[in-house]
Amino acid sequence: MRKLNILEMNRLTVDEFHEAEKLPLVVVLDDVRSLYNVGSVFRTCDAFRVEAVYLCGITATPPHNEIHKTALGAEDSVAWRYFKTADEAVAELKRQHFTIYAVEQAEGSVKLPFSIENPSSKLEKSPASFILHSSSKKGVALVLGHEVKGVSQSVVDACDGCLEIPQFGTKHSLNVSVAAGIVIWEFARHFYGQNPEKID
Amino acid sequence: MRKLNILEMNRLTVDEFHEAEKLPLVVVLDDVRSLYNVGSVFRTCDAFRVEAVYLCGITATPPHNEIHKTALGAEDSVAWRYFKTADEAVAELKRQHFTIYAVEQAEGSVKLPFSIENPSSKLEKSPASFILHSSSKKGVALVLGHEVKGVSQSVVDACDGCLEIPQFGTKHSLNVSVAAGIVIWEFARHFYGQNPEKID
Repeated sequence: MRKLNILEMNRLTVDEFHEAEKLPLVVVLDDVRSLYNVGSVFRTCDAFRVEAVYLCGITATPPHNEIHKTALGAEDSVAWRYFKTADEAVAELKRQHFTIYAVEQAEGSVKLPFSIENPSSKLEKSPASFILHSSSKKGVALVLGHEVKGVSQSVVDACDGCLEIPQFGTKHSLNVSVAAGIVIWEFARHFYGQNPEKID
Repeated sequence: MRKLNILEMNRLTVDEFHEAEKLPLVVVLDDVRSLYNVGSVFRTCDAFRVEAVYLCGITATPPHNEIHKTALGAEDSVAWRYFKTADEAVAELKRQHFTIYAVEQAEGSVKLPFSIENPSSKLEKSPASFILHSSSKKGVALVLGHEVKGVSQSVVDACDGCLEIPQFGTKHSLNVSVAAGIVIWEFARHFYGQNPEKID
């Protein structure tokens, strides 16, 4: 099978990206220490056309050489804001009527994968439905936390629920940029799968 | 919602991991340059109990301090082998009757997400079916390539097909450890979803 060249991939320019319809998803990084992880999340958010990234606390912001090394310019396409604390970011998202999930292993969490049909008992709707039918809600926000400590309990308490990636091995968690990639993909596969015209 | 503590996560010991049933998936890294990416892939393979990682060419092997920094010990649980070239790894996997996919953007690729029901026109079966019904085939192998050059065309040609993560932004690819995470998750969600008893 012949690999596609870059022109055949039909990627957007940065201006086209800014104009294009977005996945109604905001990704909040709460005290993410590694610039590598921040850049990698920007690159994933570019690929799935995420609405915005909210950088909080010690999380570094562009422009930054080390972020650029892994973001490779995605920090110029994806919209971002900085908040001193994730609590402030969550409060702002609530004002904007987002449904907010922490990505955490917690009591009563909603386990991935989620379908459109299987409502979560906690929220009476599947997380995917907030992405697909955002008439009353603006969309979904995901909060991902510090590489070791995760999302702080006070921020978890302020969220509408937790999303959990089931894990079956020896380690207690995934790398934060990989976890972000898997959860963003779970939303993207529903959104772009149900709305193929959005892809063009 | 209360975050779980590490004991509540019921993770396996390394010995239990070695004995446990695995996701019938082998991940092949072809000239992956970054030790950070290698370690991160090990950690993902631990989380989803992947059968083995095949490290090829310039890809570094454990034990290595820089791999350990992101693998965090997952290099001790997940089985691995080294091959001088990815061509040799692919030949070995063919002898073992694996169905082999390169993760690449290529003509006639199978796009994610895949279902059990929707057979791929190229392989007459969904990739998930090779994981779920591996009576004639041993399972699936995924080949991921160099951070810039991807999987080499000769290795792509030796594979049974290509798997492609649809992307809608400005950049031409995802970080390799994030791409690995998304594709491994696509297999894991089918395998563990269809075989909930395997989770216990």
